[in-house]
Amino acid sequence: MTESIGPRSAAEIDTWDYEADVVVAGYGIAGVSAAIEAARAGADVLILERTGGWGGAAAMAGGFVYLGGGTAVQKACGFEDSAENMHAFLSAAMGPGADEAKLADYCAGSVEHFEWLVDCGVAFKPTFYGKPAWEPPGDDGLMFSGGENAHPFNTIATPAPRGHVPQMAGKRTGERGGGYMLMKPLADTAAELGVKAAYDTRVQSLTTTEDGRVVGVVARQYGREVTVKARTGVVLATGSFAYNDAMVAQYAPRLTGRPAASIEEHDGRSIRMAQALGAQVAHMDAAEVAIFVDPQLLVRGIVVNNRGQRFVTEDTYPGRVGQLTLFQQDNQAFLIIDGDAHEEALAAPSATPMLLRPPTWVCDSVAELEAAIGLATGSLQSTVTAYNQSAALGKDPLLHKKPEWLRPIGTPVGAIDLRESTGGFTLGGLQTTTDSEVLHVSDETVPGLFAAGRSTSGLAAWGYASGISLGDGSFYGRRAGRAAAKG
Amino acid sequence: MTESIGPRSAAEIDTWDYEADVVVAGYGIAGVSAAIEAARAGADVLILERTGGWGGAAAMAGGFVYLGGGTAVQKACGFEDSAENMHAFLSAAMGPGADEAKLADYCAGSVEHFEWLVDCGVAFKPTFYGKPAWEPPGDDGLMFSGGENAHPFNTIATPAPRGHVPQMAGKRTGERGGGYMLMKPLADTAAELGVKAAYDTRVQSLTTTEDGRVVGVVARQYGREVTVKARTGVVLATGSFAYNDAMVAQYAPRLTGRPAASIEEHDGRSIRMAQALGAQVAHMDAAEVAIFVDPQLLVRGIVVNNRGQRFVTEDTYPGRVGQLTLFQQDNQAFLIIDGDAHEEALAAPSATPMLLRPPTWVCDSVAELEAAIGLATGSLQSTVTAYNQSAALGKDPLLHKKPEWLRPIGTPVGAIDLRESTGGFTLGGLQTTTDSEVLHVSDETVPGLFAAGRSTSGLAAWGYASGISLGDGSFYGRRAGRAAAKG
Repeated sequence: MTESIGPRSAAEIDTWDYEADVVVAGYGIAGVSAAIEAARAGADVLILERTGGWGGAAAMAGGFVYLGGGTAVQKACGFEDSAENMHAFLSAAMGPGADEAKLADYCAGSVEHFEWLVDCGVAFKPTFYGKPAWEPPGDDGLMFSGGENAHPFNTIATPAPRGHVPQMAGKRTGERGGGYMLMKPLADTAAELGVKAAYDTRVQSLTTTEDGRVVGVVARQYGREVTVKARTGVVLATGSFAYNDAMVAQYAPRLTGRPAASIEEHDGRSIRMAQALGAQVAHMDAAEVAIFVDPQLLVRGIVVNNRGQRFVTEDTYPGRVGQLTLFQQDNQAFLIIDGDAHEEALAAPSATPMLLRPPTWVCDSVAELEAAIGLATGSLQSTVTAYNQSAALGKDPLLHKKPEWLRPIGTPVGAIDLRESTGGFTLGGLQTTTDSEVLHVSDETVPGLFAAGRSTSGLAAWGYASGISLGDGSFYGRRAGRAAAKG
Repeated sequence: MTESIGPRSAAEIDTWDYEADVVVAGYGIAGVSAAIEAARAGADVLILERTGGWGGAAAMAGGFVYLGGGTAVQKACGFEDSAENMHAFLSAAMGPGADEAKLADYCAGSVEHFEWLVDCGVAFKPTFYGKPAWEPPGDDGLMFSGGENAHPFNTIATPAPRGHVPQMAGKRTGERGGGYMLMKPLADTAAELGVKAAYDTRVQSLTTTEDGRVVGVVARQYGREVTVKARTGVVLATGSFAYNDAMVAQYAPRLTGRPAASIEEHDGRSIRMAQALGAQVAHMDAAEVAIFVDPQLLVRGIVVNNRGQRFVTEDTYPGRVGQLTLFQQDNQAFLIIDGDAHEEALAAPSATPMLLRPPTWVCDSVAELEAAIGLATGSLQSTVTAYNQSAALGKDPLLHKKPEWLRPIGTPVGAIDLRESTGGFTLGGLQTTTDSEVLHVSDETVPGLFAAGRSTSGLAAWGYASGISLGDGSFYGRRAGRAAAKG
């Protein structure tokens, strides 16, 4: 019944093709961080990677690492922050249901983690980018990446930017992005420490002793089965399940059919391999959600749902606009923006010019636009009237958009159809302790098994901020490596 | 590590305290249905029940069973329905992510299932109750229980009521409700068939052979451990996990801290016992959500969120108002209703007079009410103005409330605070086939293990209609019994 994904008894394995103290599955951000720390703890480390090289999704990502509490970059840019302040923000923004122990732990260790990345050779330019954007268009190293400076979070915690981007060169020319510049020094560090890697090696199942301890994995390599013995621990770090349609349908159906910020390796197999041992999962419905429109447009318009109502302050983290659109508005949203504002946005700096989308409809009046979109008569008109009246006074009593972005919407007026403009990756996964031990449904840990990165449920339960995945992936990857080295 | 919840090896069990062909855990609706069908298939059946008697949550429930496709009661009440029409409704209302195979299967078998219940002695009075209500105040046997006759569902499928309520006597005097009148004849039928029951017997873990087949359970009885051998199959039917705070926090955190329509037995243990074997779960975030206000009030007012905006047609299934409030409006809602309408509702028939709540605030104008509630200036005023203008014309272009309930809101005007007025039970659980076999994460079935009722993910993924749980619990309970008898 469990021929391939279920656990393989170690007693049945006569010879091991590979052997190491710590065996890590997946050479992305969590895997490399685990490998470095395990090696530094004296372990002999082998990484099994399904593709032909290190990198994972991390190397293709923008590269945000969510760090705060007073990092050197935050200080150099003139921002005050503390672990408590960071925790207050994350508690409000990552829930409901966020793992409070992990939040507290992560915030307390964030400055040290920043230093660790720097010591491994990751460079962060100590300059701040403050314009509306998904990511900085140049090589600035710091940005607001979670709506910290927007309502309601700016009333809950002192706004501090925590999106740290590794410095890159030649971004516009497509050379190397921030994610690559994060992974490269870490992979180099791992290599210097003697970490070995077996490529084109795809984990298939876990190997266990009779008493349930994980002592290795079975993998497929060039079409043949290989057995890999782990003397002290196995670390699962193979990423999300966003590429697995069946799992998405079963756990996070609102993501079904949408573009996933995922790679083929994100098949959820590690999650299921561990579940076959009775491992616990959490928050499987949660997802990061991107909305494909430039924030330079968002801040200059108003976002309405299919009842013509505003539901989110447009100057917040655009991923929050995405989450609220997909999960709370049934993926129905429109950006209403006038001609002048649209032109101004097009002239503004953007890291992703393709997101400076043209309007889907342009009309001479809001009434005509409302009809063109197919909204109920009067619905958009009353929204725009109310917005314009307040905006003229520099106020937004409904959603508290910052005064700098408040300007009455004039004519001609257009709308960008955002109904099929969301996509993302899953945030749910294996439930782990702050030492990255995998929890069993009995609430005990599974001996010998550790996990980190997006195959686990990390800091985010429902909410999200850019940098959380590379953040908790590297942070709890390190924990996993240390714990696995101890065994 | 898995001392109590993990599987127990059958090889280690020398003597069995109980033995039967089919062992059923839980004597609620799914358990009794499984027992009847297993016994009719010739199996010797033993039900293990944690409490001192049969009934489960079913016996305390209102008793709706969601049935359609043209039942005798539907026909007698003059409603046309078909399996296809029922399927069209359920596909729209139970998703996104509803199990299409189960929906089709359930709709195709619904009339037969109605007849089966009748044959077992369940009586349905063939009269229809058409007024706004959570359930009929008297003993009428049929009601709309899922918003079938409200927008948007009335544009997707021909409206047919499918909430079938077993006939009861003395409801108002607290004697016996519909759920009891459903369970009683079924429990009698089981007893006549020779089904045995062991009470005060709480399942603790599953017993398996070396090749992973489930061959029994370990239970606790009066503080001591008992072993129970199942010759052909084990059926898990112990209900939801809504009473387990840790599981709710982990899977459905929006329900945390809210009153749960659950009983102490709903501890999710069966789900975790099966997960310890590698069983698959689905839609763990989904929940039925009640909103504690009488529909007689709802239809006569407008429901707004904390931005003063309407978001649901008030004449739909009130459980839908609850789900949308909790999941899509962050549990923020207010019912705006004027004095005349409130008085009219109080005079209307109600099955639950305590839900005819008084207004939290009463004011002489909408502007004052808006300020009293703390809504943004102008927000509620523009909503009421727009509603009143359309209502005066007998129209509701925004949400399509039926004309019979459209009347401009006058003064004095009040609001009922619905912000802490939701609660419910979880809908996620073990993933099963249409034969109620429990699926493993490998997508194979777990040999010897079957499940039904709210410990499984049934017809509902996100949406809900009253009667779905007793409906799929009894329907797939029967399937489980038949399949377990075959082994």
